[in-house]
Amino acid sequence: MVSWNNLDTTAAYKKLADLKGKVCLSKVMAGDEGAARVKKYCVPMAGGLCFNYAAKAVDDEVLAALCELAKEMQLAEKFEELYNGAVINTGEKRLVLHQLCRGQLGKDVIADGVNKRTFYEDQRKAAAAFAERVHKGEIVNEAGETFTTVVQIGIGGSDLGPRAIYLALENWAKQNGTLKMEARFISNVDPDDAAAVLKSVDLSRSLFVLVSKSGTTLETLTNETFVKTKLAEAGLNPAKHMIAVTSETSPLAKSSDYLAAFFMDDYIGGRYSSSSCVGGAILSLAFGPEVFARFLEGAAQEDKLATNANPLENPDMLDALIGMYERNVLGYPTTAVLPYSQALSRFPAHLQQLDMESNGKSVNRFGEPVNYVTGPVIFGEPGTNGQHSFYQLLHQGTDIVPLQFMGFRENQAGMDATIQGSTSQQKLCANVAAQIMAFACGKADENPNKSFAGNRPSSIIIGQQVNPESVGALLAHFENKVMFQGFLWNLNSFDQEGVQLGKVLAKRVLAHDTDGALAAYSELLNI
Amino acid sequence: MVSWNNLDTTAAYKKLADLKGKVCLSKVMAGDEGAARVKKYCVPMAGGLCFNYAAKAVDDEVLAALCELAKEMQLAEKFEELYNGAVINTGEKRLVLHQLCRGQLGKDVIADGVNKRTFYEDQRKAAAAFAERVHKGEIVNEAGETFTTVVQIGIGGSDLGPRAIYLALENWAKQNGTLKMEARFISNVDPDDAAAVLKSVDLSRSLFVLVSKSGTTLETLTNETFVKTKLAEAGLNPAKHMIAVTSETSPLAKSSDYLAAFFMDDYIGGRYSSSSCVGGAILSLAFGPEVFARFLEGAAQEDKLATNANPLENPDMLDALIGMYERNVLGYPTTAVLPYSQALSRFPAHLQQLDMESNGKSVNRFGEPVNYVTGPVIFGEPGTNGQHSFYQLLHQGTDIVPLQFMGFRENQAGMDATIQGSTSQQKLCANVAAQIMAFACGKADENPNKSFAGNRPSSIIIGQQVNPESVGALLAHFENKVMFQGFLWNLNSFDQEGVQLGKVLAKRVLAHDTDGALAAYSELLNI
Repeated sequence: MVSWNNLDTTAAYKKLADLKGKVCLSKVMAGDEGAARVKKYCVPMAGGLCFNYAAKAVDDEVLAALCELAKEMQLAEKFEELYNGAVINTGEKRLVLHQLCRGQLGKDVIADGVNKRTFYEDQRKAAAAFAERVHKGEIVNEAGETFTTVVQIGIGGSDLGPRAIYLALENWAKQNGTLKMEARFISNVDPDDAAAVLKSVDLSRSLFVLVSKSGTTLETLTNETFVKTKLAEAGLNPAKHMIAVTSETSPLAKSSDYLAAFFMDDYIGGRYSSSSCVGGAILSLAFGPEVFARFLEGAAQEDKLATNANPLENPDMLDALIGMYERNVLGYPTTAVLPYSQALSRFPAHLQQLDMESNGKSVNRFGEPVNYVTGPVIFGEPGTNGQHSFYQLLHQGTDIVPLQFMGFRENQAGMDATIQGSTSQQKLCANVAAQIMAFACGKADENPNKSFAGNRPSSIIIGQQVNPESVGALLAHFENKVMFQGFLWNLNSFDQEGVQLGKVLAKRVLAHDTDGALAAYSELLNI
Repeated sequence: MVSWNNLDTTAAYKKLADLKGKVCLSKVMAGDEGAARVKKYCVPMAGGLCFNYAAKAVDDEVLAALCELAKEMQLAEKFEELYNGAVINTGEKRLVLHQLCRGQLGKDVIADGVNKRTFYEDQRKAAAAFAERVHKGEIVNEAGETFTTVVQIGIGGSDLGPRAIYLALENWAKQNGTLKMEARFISNVDPDDAAAVLKSVDLSRSLFVLVSKSGTTLETLTNETFVKTKLAEAGLNPAKHMIAVTSETSPLAKSSDYLAAFFMDDYIGGRYSSSSCVGGAILSLAFGPEVFARFLEGAAQEDKLATNANPLENPDMLDALIGMYERNVLGYPTTAVLPYSQALSRFPAHLQQLDMESNGKSVNRFGEPVNYVTGPVIFGEPGTNGQHSFYQLLHQGTDIVPLQFMGFRENQAGMDATIQGSTSQQKLCANVAAQIMAFACGKADENPNKSFAGNRPSSIIIGQQVNPESVGALLAHFENKVMFQGFLWNLNSFDQEGVQLGKVLAKRVLAHDTDGALAAYSELLNI
């Protein structure tokens, strides 16, 4: 049986605190020692990726203490409890089973009288079969025409992950001849969001995927009605243009308003739902079920690596430990996610949700306030764009921001140009390598304005290409990293009570049941 | 003559430090006092906007100290020096004249032998005349067809601002019948960026705007060659499909490779260049010159407000002062920008650049290290999307993140739906009002997991609609805010030496002139 303790109760954490400032990154990354670190501090991931942490402010002694901490906090055992079906989401008294959508890591998990792996697989297969019938022209619009576009209606976890993955693979799929349907996304309750998407598609050839686990998300139901109204105005039957992804107990589950319904359940949190039908329906429709299966396989392989109790062989656990060290021992409040790939343009937004919604909490899993900081602010944009934007602060600002780079040896579209003796892809890769070293080692200059202090830590995930397997591995890596950090901070990473108060107050505003400042703001906004 | 001093040398700053913790936001925002604050702590902006700071942790005493600080640090006088043509960018020994693109605030500024207001106006008019000829079909492709799409090739300041503004006004323009050409943007050196954009347009009807002040930006020249190659492969003459926006002294200025060239100069930094031809060429082509002129007018009106020496009547200066107070006195390291408008989806990315590249610095304008923190990390996404993502951390995380909301009473597209008794627009506005109060006042709960500490400060900019005037005012507001904060921190906000080291090292990688860790990374990335 594992025991759930706060981070600051452990001996290893105290040891880590004593090691603060021991590693001078600009020194250890210089010369031959630096080259040796790049080769040594690298751990394989799934999907052809590797996690390289040479430019983090750690050495063998710090790593040994992190390994002790992992053992003392029983990180591997806690993950084992999770994938074997323990009630890890204590606040809501739920199992946490998103990994089961892509593989079976441990024992059979039986809940609500069914084998959950079988349940998720059945749902995946049902969505796959549906997608294939759409692609074959067996499911068509009322005029007998095929569907060419799929539009997801969802918000938060029903939007950011699937959207990031779609964008990550859209051009790969075009290049590989597997783009079956173009995808669009409607999320914001701002009516201009839905209006712009609907104007950009051929409504008569569009299939909508309504995604809401509870079937009660205000934004999603609002946008559903918005879309149905426009379909009806165009003389189309909404029920012939819409499918639902929801839980079996939701009001949407058995409705004749949908061509089909695919199910998730309470054991899969929104931000962890990309591997379920929440991602599976739209991605199978857009790319074909086989591509989605390859994505799941990449994630499943990464999950297997995450079961290793040795952090030095477990990239997800190691990333989590180093991140905790930077947050709690070194005291850095933010982390930047910087993929050197335009395809991953919205991956930072997904990670921002995944991380900040999971671990942005002040009480531990028992509801007791913690005496240490928890989840950092996560932000990021693709490189090289960011270099011409906020990197100035990263290099010379007064705060140190740990960096999470990603880089890939090959592009997706197979179009490139050689200019000044190098391809664009080489320039892209040269820039990320250069940045790591510039951040780590800096450069002294007589002009203090041109001086770089260095000692700014980064890691990089390196891969061959952004493709289904590597995107699956990336997704699982960060899900597992966030989970392990939640274990370290002794949080429940799987609820989100912090989003409730705003919802309650918004309802009061709409009911004109307000006074004081809230009424005054409502007046200013003309509600 | 103004004197340039560090923030911590002033008497008012010491006074502010003593006031730390005096205002309990959750108390002052409750009941009638809260309602009174919402009405009182509100200052008009241009473009029909207002800046409401009721939910900031200030009171009349703190505000009085901020006003003293503004006076002691001569903020208004420093702005006056700037717009009258002093060498404010000391590092590069340059004037700072972006405001002059949209209006004349002070004396004539003569530099390089010309009146700079006249010069910028002439360039604006030249770009406007060119756009009108394109719209009238007087400038066409070699087959005699009109151009339908305009594609900007630029990065950083030549990309983020114009892109954010285009997206902000695209649907407004559609609705108002002024969308003349669709716009696209190529920025990243990742070849997949250009490849995806080129696949999405009709090359033969596309006009490209190459934007590089120096004419030497690696990404931009690479993408130019990439685009020219594809044009040539399609049997098109690149010189008939491309215009340049650059400085008169750049290699691009007099080249026959372009249909036309429009000019900016060294007195307009990239991140401040949206009001110049960098924004003007593409926005005039996309929306028509009249819309761009309205945008400039909104910015010019906001600039006029920024000249007021009284912070309580100067929204830009006041926002700057409160932001400094939160950063330096209250110790908050980040700021979130949260527009409740899908049209402003990329405005946070622009502000991230504007703010972090301007004030992410550790030495003052004399090159001396400062003893206080400077520019914060800026991040953000549109609401309500963010509510279902990172707001969990904002409400219940261990760090406090000051918030900058924006809300608008009307949508752009004129499409809306009434569901459960309210429109989507009302729901959007109700949510932002609710969030402000939830953050400020919180809510106690027996279950600590459902408890909200409150005391999380925010401001909101409220407007009627996202339209040319309000977007211009917003842009100028933040440019001026960042400028005033640079004055407070005694920084040079107008250079960016922190981006240089990475460029130098990237060139070494491409020349295979590396050793140590950099060579090891290059090998891993197969460069």
